[in-house]
Amino acid sequence: MYTGSIDTLIKAIKKKNNPTVAGLDPKLDFIPEYYVNEAFERHGRTLKGAAEAIWQFNKRLIDELYDVVPAVKPQSAYYEMYGFEGVRVLEQTISYAKERGLYVIADVKRNDIGTTADAYARAYIGETDLGNGINVKAFDADSATVNAYLGSDGIKPFLSKDKSIFVLVKTSNPSSGELQDKILEDGTVYEHIAGLVKEWGIDYIGKNKYSNVGAVVGATYPKQLETLREMMPNTYFLVPGYGAQGGTAKDVAKAFNKDGLGAIINASRSIMCAYQKDKCAPEDFAKAARAEAIRMRDEIVSYIK
Amino acid sequence: MYTGSIDTLIKAIKKKNNPTVAGLDPKLDFIPEYYVNEAFERHGRTLKGAAEAIWQFNKRLIDELYDVVPAVKPQSAYYEMYGFEGVRVLEQTISYAKERGLYVIADVKRNDIGTTADAYARAYIGETDLGNGINVKAFDADSATVNAYLGSDGIKPFLSKDKSIFVLVKTSNPSSGELQDKILEDGTVYEHIAGLVKEWGIDYIGKNKYSNVGAVVGATYPKQLETLREMMPNTYFLVPGYGAQGGTAKDVAKAFNKDGLGAIINASRSIMCAYQKDKCAPEDFAKAARAEAIRMRDEIVSYIK
Repeated sequence: MYTGSIDTLIKAIKKKNNPTVAGLDPKLDFIPEYYVNEAFERHGRTLKGAAEAIWQFNKRLIDELYDVVPAVKPQSAYYEMYGFEGVRVLEQTISYAKERGLYVIADVKRNDIGTTADAYARAYIGETDLGNGINVKAFDADSATVNAYLGSDGIKPFLSKDKSIFVLVKTSNPSSGELQDKILEDGTVYEHIAGLVKEWGIDYIGKNKYSNVGAVVGATYPKQLETLREMMPNTYFLVPGYGAQGGTAKDVAKAFNKDGLGAIINASRSIMCAYQKDKCAPEDFAKAARAEAIRMRDEIVSYIK
Repeated sequence: MYTGSIDTLIKAIKKKNNPTVAGLDPKLDFIPEYYVNEAFERHGRTLKGAAEAIWQFNKRLIDELYDVVPAVKPQSAYYEMYGFEGVRVLEQTISYAKERGLYVIADVKRNDIGTTADAYARAYIGETDLGNGINVKAFDADSATVNAYLGSDGIKPFLSKDKSIFVLVKTSNPSSGELQDKILEDGTVYEHIAGLVKEWGIDYIGKNKYSNVGAVVGATYPKQLETLREMMPNTYFLVPGYGAQGGTAKDVAKAFNKDGLGAIINASRSIMCAYQKDKCAPEDFAKAARAEAIRMRDEIVSYIK
């Protein structure tokens, strides 16, 4: 029951004592040359070859990370970039991560009008109706990121007792303020969206007092993170921007509530590319990723009261 | 040169004397039963079977529409809903439509931070680097829709002399006002985004005086459409909401400038499902779509001064 709910994620976070999520953003540049060349030798220097290299990379990362992190977050862009072959590997990656007991957040930032938002919700966290009573899960993630520029119509199809979503509120990138920091009558744009997120989430609060409707709040804006944490006590935060983008453990500590819950911190490049920084042998890339995931866990946990 | 630019679209609009685009949103419910059953007989009632039915549907629609409409707009959600097999058909549909001389707008509404936005831009309107100087076009559309909630970082990777984009400004859905109509110091949120769209587009204005950076403005808000038309003389509008959503030809006429250009009006369901309304034989669905596309063209052209 409720296998993709925020309670499921919280259970995994508690079990592993680790409020972090490993981003799976497999640019070809991030993958050790050996694996890339091997895949290209078998499939030619093609999108299919690239997709195969990504799959081998992801599989090894998941094998080394599954007992350390509670969740993974594949970033869809880095699969779509390799065409449908890449998207096939996204499906495969989600399925394999779930087999390994990981909670999977599909970072797709989808957004559209009602009927089309419904199709996106079905694709990532629901079921596709094939007629004759047959329903199939296309990507079968536990959670998806969404963009709320279109308002409620675009969000409601994603609301579920059984799955979580993370709505973009204050994003981690340098230009996020161009719209998000603008002042409305009742506060900033991101505060206004925060208010909507609370409304959308109110009927989906689980036994840990957190809603299945979460928020994306960047670690790179610690002051705003603090304000939003106060505004949204029952909202889980997905926090990008730690590590490569400049957010520190001290910054992300502000994302947590006094119960030690309320946030999951993402790192992508710093984990995937740990082997490049550590100058270890490329074939040990997954072990380097594991070491960095453990280091990150210990650092962040040490900052949470 | 500049094969996906707004000038290319304008050339096609002028040639066919038709400022409309046919949406390809192939929900299984929209496809005549005969084609669906045939595909399921061959591939089983599976995502692959559904994708095959979509492909047969799209191919026949394109064959009947390519000499009437200048452009098609596949809505990605209705492909993603069928998993990577659906996404394979999205690729195939874009490729086939381009072979038939159609301008293709990938309705993907992508949005992300800089490096990830770059991956999305490469996926839909750019090239993916496979190393050794080999670059491959993954989806190879002429244009893509994008969401600007993240600001410039998320848009700049999509800017190009060679391709167009349409940025969500004022969307056609009932709840679009929940954020877009909110009042800032310098106007509404949608007017603020309109200002950014103008800025982003200024270096990408073609020989017809329109920028490669266009805007999505819904036909269902004719007053706002009028205001935006005045504010943004050099911005091409992609206008959804005509037909099934309630926008009339009189409403959409406001989207055009005095040069008779400046907008392309989308219709999806009313064209794809014309055979259901006309109660014609399902095997004639593509002919019914053609008749409706011609009717729509003539109606809209008659309203443009």
